[in-house]
Amino acid sequence: MLARSALSRSANIITRKMQTSAVNSSATWIKDPAALAAKYSPFKSVDLPNRTWPDQRITKAPRWASSDLRDGNQALVNPMTIEQKKRVFDLLVKCGFKEIEAGFPSASETEFAWIRQLIEQKQCPDDVWLQVLTPAREELIRRTFQGVRDANKVILHMYNAAAPIFREQVFGNTQQQTIDLAVKHVKIVRELVDEAIARGDRTQWQFEYSPEAFSQTEPDFAVRLCNAVQDAWFGARDKSKEAPIIFNLPATVEVATPNNYADQIEYFCRNVQDRQHIIVSLHTHNDRGTGVAASELGLMAGADRVEGCLFGNGERTGNVDLVTLAMNMYTQGVSPELDFSNMEECIEVITSCTDIGVHPRAPWAGELVFTAFSGSHQDAIKKGFHHRKRDESKPWQIPYLPVDPADIGMTYEAVIRVNSQSGKGGVAYLVQRALQLDLPKKMQPAFYQVVQSISERTAKEITADDIEKAFRATYYYGPEFNGRFTLVDYSFATGADGKKSFQGTVSIDGAEKKISGDGNGPVSALLNALNAAWDGGAHNLEVKEYSEHALGAGSDVRAASYVQLVDKASGRAVWGVSSSTDVTEASLKAVLSAASNAAVPAERRFAEIEDQVVGSRV
Amino acid sequence: MLARSALSRSANIITRKMQTSAVNSSATWIKDPAALAAKYSPFKSVDLPNRTWPDQRITKAPRWASSDLRDGNQALVNPMTIEQKKRVFDLLVKCGFKEIEAGFPSASETEFAWIRQLIEQKQCPDDVWLQVLTPAREELIRRTFQGVRDANKVILHMYNAAAPIFREQVFGNTQQQTIDLAVKHVKIVRELVDEAIARGDRTQWQFEYSPEAFSQTEPDFAVRLCNAVQDAWFGARDKSKEAPIIFNLPATVEVATPNNYADQIEYFCRNVQDRQHIIVSLHTHNDRGTGVAASELGLMAGADRVEGCLFGNGERTGNVDLVTLAMNMYTQGVSPELDFSNMEECIEVITSCTDIGVHPRAPWAGELVFTAFSGSHQDAIKKGFHHRKRDESKPWQIPYLPVDPADIGMTYEAVIRVNSQSGKGGVAYLVQRALQLDLPKKMQPAFYQVVQSISERTAKEITADDIEKAFRATYYYGPEFNGRFTLVDYSFATGADGKKSFQGTVSIDGAEKKISGDGNGPVSALLNALNAAWDGGAHNLEVKEYSEHALGAGSDVRAASYVQLVDKASGRAVWGVSSSTDVTEASLKAVLSAASNAAVPAERRFAEIEDQVVGSRV
Repeated sequence: MLARSALSRSANIITRKMQTSAVNSSATWIKDPAALAAKYSPFKSVDLPNRTWPDQRITKAPRWASSDLRDGNQALVNPMTIEQKKRVFDLLVKCGFKEIEAGFPSASETEFAWIRQLIEQKQCPDDVWLQVLTPAREELIRRTFQGVRDANKVILHMYNAAAPIFREQVFGNTQQQTIDLAVKHVKIVRELVDEAIARGDRTQWQFEYSPEAFSQTEPDFAVRLCNAVQDAWFGARDKSKEAPIIFNLPATVEVATPNNYADQIEYFCRNVQDRQHIIVSLHTHNDRGTGVAASELGLMAGADRVEGCLFGNGERTGNVDLVTLAMNMYTQGVSPELDFSNMEECIEVITSCTDIGVHPRAPWAGELVFTAFSGSHQDAIKKGFHHRKRDESKPWQIPYLPVDPADIGMTYEAVIRVNSQSGKGGVAYLVQRALQLDLPKKMQPAFYQVVQSISERTAKEITADDIEKAFRATYYYGPEFNGRFTLVDYSFATGADGKKSFQGTVSIDGAEKKISGDGNGPVSALLNALNAAWDGGAHNLEVKEYSEHALGAGSDVRAASYVQLVDKASGRAVWGVSSSTDVTEASLKAVLSAASNAAVPAERRFAEIEDQVVGSRV
Repeated sequence: MLARSALSRSANIITRKMQTSAVNSSATWIKDPAALAAKYSPFKSVDLPNRTWPDQRITKAPRWASSDLRDGNQALVNPMTIEQKKRVFDLLVKCGFKEIEAGFPSASETEFAWIRQLIEQKQCPDDVWLQVLTPAREELIRRTFQGVRDANKVILHMYNAAAPIFREQVFGNTQQQTIDLAVKHVKIVRELVDEAIARGDRTQWQFEYSPEAFSQTEPDFAVRLCNAVQDAWFGARDKSKEAPIIFNLPATVEVATPNNYADQIEYFCRNVQDRQHIIVSLHTHNDRGTGVAASELGLMAGADRVEGCLFGNGERTGNVDLVTLAMNMYTQGVSPELDFSNMEECIEVITSCTDIGVHPRAPWAGELVFTAFSGSHQDAIKKGFHHRKRDESKPWQIPYLPVDPADIGMTYEAVIRVNSQSGKGGVAYLVQRALQLDLPKKMQPAFYQVVQSISERTAKEITADDIEKAFRATYYYGPEFNGRFTLVDYSFATGADGKKSFQGTVSIDGAEKKISGDGNGPVSALLNALNAAWDGGAHNLEVKEYSEHALGAGSDVRAASYVQLVDKASGRAVWGVSSSTDVTEASLKAVLSAASNAAVPAERRFAEIEDQVVGSRV
């Protein structure tokens, strides 16, 4: 086995590289539409003027079939080992898949051995159909039957090429030759199934047939071909007593807008014979980025079943992403009958076995897809959560959040992240999460300015930790941050007129000082005492805003106090915050927090705070 | 500035994490559909029974607007620096964008300074419209106008929240209050534009209005709101002499199947007043993985313009990917009027400035999207290229390749890669690319077996280099690989009966030996000489297959010879290959190549070759 670095080096040899001489220029792209029109021709439409699918909705889960271990595996730079296949198989079972295309047993010894292991070691649960793919070639069909011998439930999936692009360029077959080829091999499959039944094998069988590149095949020919396959499969049997035949209709390469695939599916469903005895299965790829849409519109057009892979693994751009399809259904209130509540585990198993990551913006599963950086988004989300708290029995309706993150194993913290574009709502939310402090609305812009100045200076994301640290530093909140003024001890006396007299010790720049003053309440009494004592009475701080709220509950309850002071001399306004088990003490400390801010010029305060936050990150 | 590793560490603090106690289980997902239906409600449809969009096709490029520097930038963990913004801006101009939403100047000093730089340093070409976003708030609108002063062409883009989810949860506004708010601020924008014109500013203006979360807004209310905005904007002016107003209709969060967005767009186009004086603009996101489909169907429904980002950057799951939309159009023969012929450069600039990669399976741009690992796919592609060579003026039609890779700056080598699931066609193709040897069809399975055995043993991708090395080792092709037999010198005499007599020196296991023999031709003469000389005549090798072809052209032309020998004693068949400027010499050496293979037991040969290939990789 090679070392990983050696692999990466060698695997890169034939990846995409820039051409040294530019074959094309913007000429084809922009300036010469005629040349472009001659090189690429538009897709052919189905004529379906009276289509009904645009009025339909998806109201129930289809039959799901995972192709992770077949279409997915064959498209990997490093196909999975048997151990990895087993991990993925177990995950699929855990998520609720009942039909799993586990491999292509006639393709190689490795594939064959893997299918044998599943069967012989009884690794496939009794209620799961083991699906295997085979080309329409006799020796490979026979080998496939050897591969699945003694399995419990088997979907035997045979394909052959039906589209003109294959018939003409690859096989040189006419339509009739293609039908003959299919019919001949369907009969072989039928015989082998009949033999197995006659032999008394316990296996239950379903037959699946794929006219390859269905979406590039003449629609009437696809119907004729599938009718012939149906006749060959059922023969003279009573269809109503047989398992239905699965017609899987692949958009092998996505070549058209997704509405055209829906038209093709509706056309097929309307025209194929004995619709009630067949299962119409979708199998879309994502070459034009509309594989999910094609499957959704295809379901609306009447299909019963969907094949795909988790996180859109599969040939080239991948098969349709079944996680997205299921989540789309789930968030419409329709049970997908698959379970992705443990999204992290799904991501971990699939990415480690395929060696391909989930993109940070991949729907429902990407790292950034529930993240709001923008301030207005953060504010709306905060309000949405608040609104929801009033009545959690109502349907989920939170701005920018189409799913409750908890439903896929995520916490709300992940939703709000802060960068230099973020707003005060998000910052306030994170302070609340970290310190349970519910900042007064009028205070939010002041602290936001601090965060924004740090963020702009560093040009990097500010973490929740950074914000907590910035908050503590700005308001001297917590023992590690001391302002110019701190409270040492104090007592109050209340006069006959109801006025409060403050007497106490305050540390000013480290030196303790006895101060005293009167006021209408404790806050104004302290403030009067401080104004008189500080710089010989040169300052005149007044309370502009004051609020408080309870912090925690029960015997641990504390009070949080917020004070905005304004310096009458300069007009400058500053905030202070504190909390304490005693509500009066909380307000006194909040006053000293604000006064400490007032006692340092604004520019110098910003620089101090930045140093404390950014300095601690390096 | 922080070190990169420090950033990564801190940025991870609030990324998604698994919940320790599972709030949800498969109960909600699978077993309790009623609870699920109560939690999530399905999207509301537009009533549009006589829709026409499903019969339309996209036949011309829309007006494109890039939001990479606004919606894209605000959704980054680390928003771009001014230098990075400039790189992206220049790339967008190079690709042909004429409308670029470059920022949100009222949001921060950084944003404001960036817009000022673009204008003051004349970095925005004369034919490019500089688009800026502003909320509907007077002071921010005024700030935005300061931001764009002296620009050449400005699209002033104002939004406010129209959807009930915002009106009710975030702003507490009725429909009428929302209309009043919009109208009031449109009039402010109008006044500021009129002032600028009166002042003699050279700026040309367009106005764009976004009813936020259009796709979640009551369709009739969206029309009423936009009609009121239109009235406020045009006032008593003659609309036919004014630039049209742009109504941008965002699917701010994607909440429905894409056909519903198309219905909403068609409804809007039909019902909005004075359709001829407005531009209908699409702005889709990708929360359900159908953002591309929604934009395509929206264009079919009558829209004129599309906003999005390259490679689908943008909030959460991203804005619609404009590269995919343009490539989809291009490969239908419709000029997108954007140029992505230099795809590598686009990828490099965007990924380095956003710090987000392009997924290997991202349509058109991902590393794996034109790669075929599977043998049958490789074979079909090979035949497709061969077929195309006959008449390159015909429209592009190659199986599994919806675009000519050369059109986006890629070489064909990238298309075919080999892993343990690959087939002989792909292997043969890579031999041909590397050595110009066109292996006879009958020879392909033999060499394929060698490659497959190496691949299965290593469970890793086999590179083109590995295949070349395996081929050289297997057939002693090239000076570094010597078989048991090598040709030293030789001469031929032709008898009166036309028979050939071979006389020459052959090195056998390193020891030179004179040998001679007669035959109907040079090959049989050599073979007879060898049979007699080797192991005392114990072997009896016969020619089973023989073919040759020219290699190269002109004075450098060489001959390539392929010989299959069968050992009459054991029945074992082996191939040999050689090339030379002399056709006779090529065939003689091919015989000795095959004979060397025949002279080593099969198992030992496999082991030798594997050692030579895999050993050299570590």
